[in-house]
Amino acid sequence: MWIDFEPVGRRVEGREGQNLLEIARDAGVGIASLCGGQGVCGACRVQVLEGDITPQTTLEQEAFSEAELADGYRLACLARPLGDVKVHIPPRSLTTEQRLQIEGQQLAVKVDPTVRGVAVQVPEPALTDLRSDVTRLADVLRQGEDVVRVDSLLLRQLSDRLRQEEWAGTVGLRGREVVSFYPVGRGPLGLAVDLGTTKVAGYLLDLVSGETLGADAIMNPQIPYGEDVMARLTFALQEAEGRGTLQRVIVEGLDRLTQALCTGAGRRPEEIADAVVVGNTAMHHLFLGLPVGQLGRAPYVPAVSDALDVKARDLGLTLSPGAYVHLLPNIAGFVGADHVAMLLATGLWQEDKVVAGLDVGTNTEVALKAGDRLLTCSTASGPAFEGAHIRFGMRAATGAIERVHLRDSRVEYQTIGGTPPVGLCGSGILDAVAQLRLAGVLDRRGKMKDHPRTRRGEKGPEFVLVEAAESGVQQDITISRADVGEIQLAKGAMRAGVRLLLREAGLNEADLDAVVVAGAFGTYIDVESAVTIGMFPPLPPDRFQQVGNAAGLGARMVLLSRAQRAKAVEIARHAEYVELTNDPNFANEFAHAMYLESKM
Amino acid sequence: MWIDFEPVGRRVEGREGQNLLEIARDAGVGIASLCGGQGVCGACRVQVLEGDITPQTTLEQEAFSEAELADGYRLACLARPLGDVKVHIPPRSLTTEQRLQIEGQQLAVKVDPTVRGVAVQVPEPALTDLRSDVTRLADVLRQGEDVVRVDSLLLRQLSDRLRQEEWAGTVGLRGREVVSFYPVGRGPLGLAVDLGTTKVAGYLLDLVSGETLGADAIMNPQIPYGEDVMARLTFALQEAEGRGTLQRVIVEGLDRLTQALCTGAGRRPEEIADAVVVGNTAMHHLFLGLPVGQLGRAPYVPAVSDALDVKARDLGLTLSPGAYVHLLPNIAGFVGADHVAMLLATGLWQEDKVVAGLDVGTNTEVALKAGDRLLTCSTASGPAFEGAHIRFGMRAATGAIERVHLRDSRVEYQTIGGTPPVGLCGSGILDAVAQLRLAGVLDRRGKMKDHPRTRRGEKGPEFVLVEAAESGVQQDITISRADVGEIQLAKGAMRAGVRLLLREAGLNEADLDAVVVAGAFGTYIDVESAVTIGMFPPLPPDRFQQVGNAAGLGARMVLLSRAQRAKAVEIARHAEYVELTNDPNFANEFAHAMYLESKM
Repeated sequence: MWIDFEPVGRRVEGREGQNLLEIARDAGVGIASLCGGQGVCGACRVQVLEGDITPQTTLEQEAFSEAELADGYRLACLARPLGDVKVHIPPRSLTTEQRLQIEGQQLAVKVDPTVRGVAVQVPEPALTDLRSDVTRLADVLRQGEDVVRVDSLLLRQLSDRLRQEEWAGTVGLRGREVVSFYPVGRGPLGLAVDLGTTKVAGYLLDLVSGETLGADAIMNPQIPYGEDVMARLTFALQEAEGRGTLQRVIVEGLDRLTQALCTGAGRRPEEIADAVVVGNTAMHHLFLGLPVGQLGRAPYVPAVSDALDVKARDLGLTLSPGAYVHLLPNIAGFVGADHVAMLLATGLWQEDKVVAGLDVGTNTEVALKAGDRLLTCSTASGPAFEGAHIRFGMRAATGAIERVHLRDSRVEYQTIGGTPPVGLCGSGILDAVAQLRLAGVLDRRGKMKDHPRTRRGEKGPEFVLVEAAESGVQQDITISRADVGEIQLAKGAMRAGVRLLLREAGLNEADLDAVVVAGAFGTYIDVESAVTIGMFPPLPPDRFQQVGNAAGLGARMVLLSRAQRAKAVEIARHAEYVELTNDPNFANEFAHAMYLESKM
Repeated sequence: MWIDFEPVGRRVEGREGQNLLEIARDAGVGIASLCGGQGVCGACRVQVLEGDITPQTTLEQEAFSEAELADGYRLACLARPLGDVKVHIPPRSLTTEQRLQIEGQQLAVKVDPTVRGVAVQVPEPALTDLRSDVTRLADVLRQGEDVVRVDSLLLRQLSDRLRQEEWAGTVGLRGREVVSFYPVGRGPLGLAVDLGTTKVAGYLLDLVSGETLGADAIMNPQIPYGEDVMARLTFALQEAEGRGTLQRVIVEGLDRLTQALCTGAGRRPEEIADAVVVGNTAMHHLFLGLPVGQLGRAPYVPAVSDALDVKARDLGLTLSPGAYVHLLPNIAGFVGADHVAMLLATGLWQEDKVVAGLDVGTNTEVALKAGDRLLTCSTASGPAFEGAHIRFGMRAATGAIERVHLRDSRVEYQTIGGTPPVGLCGSGILDAVAQLRLAGVLDRRGKMKDHPRTRRGEKGPEFVLVEAAESGVQQDITISRADVGEIQLAKGAMRAGVRLLLREAGLNEADLDAVVVAGAFGTYIDVESAVTIGMFPPLPPDRFQQVGNAAGLGARMVLLSRAQRAKAVEIARHAEYVELTNDPNFANEFAHAMYLESKM
C-alpha cells in the first residue's frame, strides 16, 4: 500500500490500519498536530486526491465545509488508506521544518537563464595562429558579427585557465560577455536571495539544469544596528560610516550564506556566475550602499527604482570574477523588489479575477489586481508578528508555540520541533488572540475579561497559556492586554490597506475572488484565526492561498528565466503605488480595523 | 617688426639687426644651437614661410639642398628679418623643453568624445511626483524609449549631490550610462596616457572644449622591477605577487601623475570621466594585471588584443566613480596599442603613398603602408637609445649631451638645459657615432681607429668627447668601441625590420615616399646622423618626418573623438603582423644592417 505525499514528493509504504498521520510520521513527513491524533485540533488537514480511504467521520464533517469535504479534505489522524492513495498536504498543515524543506523544490519555469553555460574547445596558439587568447575564444563563440567580450577581471585568469584545462571547458556567457569559466563537466551556478529585514534566505541553483542545489537562511546581520526598517535608516543617517557599516555587514553575511550553500553542495562561490537579490526598498538600498536620506523623509522616494545589474565585486561579494547581481525593480519607497518578486511568483499581476496579495512582514505590502489595474501600498504592520514587542514573543525557532487551541479552560498547543514551549512565534500569537476572542476572554476592543486562567500582571491583565512547570523557561508563558494591543495595531494597518486599495478600485471586500498570503509568516498562520480577529476580510477559507516565501520563489524564477526577468520589469512599470497617508479615509479605516472582529 | 614663431604659437617683437636666433632667445623661444651662432653647426635650421629677410649666405647654401633653399630653409643665426616674418621651427631645431611645451597644444579633431557633458535641470520630488531620483534624472535625459542608467557606484553619491546642487548640474553621459556628475558650470575632464616602458606621459583634457589643460610625465615606476620589457615579464612570472606588484605600482604612479595634472589645472581627479591609455602590449597587460606567461614564451600571443573598456575602479585608479579606461587594440604580442595610436595620429594607415613608420624605443615597432596593405613588425632595438648599456649613457635629462658636432679635433656639443655635460642621451650618442664615422674614426664595422682624442680604455679603445675639466662629473666623458657596438645592434634591428617589411610588400628602400619617425627619441635625433650610420635608409632628408610623441597624440585624439576611436579599431583589424624571427632572411639582413654605412 503506497502513499504519495504532495508537495513533499515522498512515496512511502503504509501498513494496514495506520492512519495518514501515523504513516506520514513514520516516514519523516511532518504533518502538524496539536491534539495528538484525537481528531479535535484540526491541525492535520490534508486533501486526498486519489485512492480509496475510510469514510468521513462525524468529527471531520464538523471540521470542514461541504465544499471542502467534496474536495476530499480529511483529518490525517482519522483517515486510513484502503489502498494506494495520493495526498496533498496544504502548507498550513506542514510542520515548519517540512515547509522549509519543500521550498528547495524544482521550479516550473523554462530554464533560460541570463547566464548560459556554453561548452568550448579552443584551438591552441601556434606560429601560424597568433590570435590573442580572447580572440581565439571569441571566434569559437562568434555569432555572425556579434563578438563576445570577456569581463575585465576574468581576463586576469582566463589565459592561464585555458592552458590548465588544455583549451577545453565551459564558459558562463551573459549576452555577449563571458563572466566565468569552468572545467569540462562543470557549468554556471546561480544564487537567489530574498533579503528580508529579519531573515535572509539564499538558494543555490544549477543554471544548466535549473535544479535547486541548496537552500539556507541566516538572520539579517544588520539587526544589531536596528530591528526594523526605520531604525536602520536612522542608523545609516545618524552614525558616521553608518551606511557603509550596514552595507558591509550584509555583504559579509551573504558571503557566509553563499559559502555555506556551496559547501553543502560541494561547490565553490567562484562558480556562481549570476545572482538575483530581492528585498524591500530599504534593504535594497542598504545592500547597494545607496543614500537613504530621501527614503526616510517625506515624500520617501527611492534613489533608484529601475532594475539594476551590478558587478558582484562592486558590492564586495565574492562570486565568479565577472558575476553580476541583478536587482529587481522597486515600485516605491516602501513597496520594493521583494513585492515585485511575489507578484511575479504568484502570477497575481496577470489574474483576470479580483485578487488581493499580502506580503506579511514588518511592513506588509498589499497589492490589488482588479481589471487592468495593479494597485499597491505599504502598511506599517510592525514587528509584532515577528515576535517583537510581545512579552513572550520570539522568532519562529525551536520551542516557539506556533499553534494554539483553547478547549474550555485547557490550552492545546504545538511547538516548533516539539520541544517544551519557550515563547510564542507570530502564528502562535495570532492563534492565541483569535482563540481568546472566540472564547469571549477578549472583547472587540481587545479588553481582557475574567477567566480561570487570567490574572493581574505587572502591566495589566494577562492570560496564562502555559504554566511554568510545563514550559521550557521555568516561568508562566502569558499573553497580556498590551500584547493584544500590538496585534491590533499590526492587523489593523493591514486590513486598512486592503480596504483602501479596494476603495481606490471602486470595489469592496466581498468582491475579492481570492486573497494571496505570502511571506514566511503568512504561510504559517491559521487563516481562520486571522479572519476571526479581523486581520483578513471575512471570506470563505478557500479564497485564501498561502503561498510561502513567494519573494524567494520569484527571485529563483528570475534567476532561471530571462522571460521572467522581463516580466518583473513589466510588473513594476504597470503597478500603481497608492500612498495611504495621503488618503483622507486612512485614519478612519485604520481605527475601525483595529477591532477584533471580522465584519467592518 | 613682428616675428611669428610656429608651431610654438608665439608672436614677438624683433629689433632691427637682430637675427632670428637672437630674437627667439630674447623671447624664450628655444631654438637649438651648438656653435653659438657662428653658422657652422646647422642645428638652428628654420623655415621662413612669409616676409622679407636678408639674402642666403654661402654657409647656408652649403648647409641646405636646393629644394630646401627653395622652400625657405635658413639658419636662424644667419638670417635677419627686414620686416614682419613668419617662421616655422622644425621639431629637431627646438630645444627639449620647447618640444615638451608644444606637445600640449590644441588637437585638430572634431570634439565628439565618448563621454559628453549634458546640462540638466531635474524636477524635485513631491507628494504628487514620487519617481525615484534616477528615474527623474533619466526622464530628463530620455531619448524616446532609450533610457539612461547610472553607474552603480555613482548611484551612491547621486541622490545627495542632486540635492546639494539644488537639482541642477551637468552629467557625464557615456552612451546611455551616466558616469559622473558636476555642479553647474563644470563638465567632464579626460585623461590620455602614453604608457611607455620608460616614460609615462599624461595629458589632462577638457572634454567639452577639447582643450589640453596640462601635460606631464613621470618615469615608469615599474623600472626598479626590470628596465626593459623582457625583464619585467620575467619579474611578473618568477616573483610571487610579481604581476600584482607591477600592476599596483603603475596604478599608483598614474594616480600621482593624474593628481599632479589636476592640481596644475585647479581640478580634481574625480572630475575625470574618461581615460585612454596606450602602451605596448606588455605595458598594456601589466597595467591591466593580465597574465603574461603566454606573452613571454613563443609564440608570444597576447591575452587580449581587442579594444577594451574597463572601469577605472577595477584597476584601482581614482577617477570619477563611473569612469572607464579605454584601451586601444593591440596588433600582436610586440606590436601594441601605442603603435596603433601612432598610426592613427600620423594618418599613416590611410596614406596612398609608400610610407614607413618607426616608433623608436626599447622595442622599435615598424609599419609599412604600401597599397592596401598595412604591415607591422617589432624589432628588439634594445635600450641603448635610452642611454642604457652605454658607459656614459643617460636619459634625456638636464646635462645630457643631445647634439654633437666634430670639427677637426674639436668636439662641439649642446646639453639639455645648457648645463655642463654629465652624459649622453640617445640623440647625442647617435650624433657622436655618426660624427666619428664621418671623421673616419670608426670604420663600417665599428672598429675605432687612432685619433688625437682616442685612447685605450679599460674595455678597449674609447674616444674622449668631453674632458674632465669641462664636464659636470669631474671625469672624461667618452664613447667606447663597446658603446658603438650597442648602437650597431640597435640600429641594425631597426633597419632590418624596415627592409623585411619592404621585401614582404615586394618593394625596396628607394620606393619609400616617406619615413615617419615617432617617439620621444625619434623626435630629437638628427636624421642625417641616423642615415649616416645606416639606421635609416639612404633617402633625401625631406622624406623623413619627425612627429614627436605620436602615441600620446593618438591617445588624445581617441579621448576626444568617437570617430577616431572607431578608426583605431579599424587600424588594428587591418594591420598584418609579420613575425620577423619566422623570416628566413632575417639573420642575413640583420647582420648586414649592423654596418655603419648607409647603402646596403
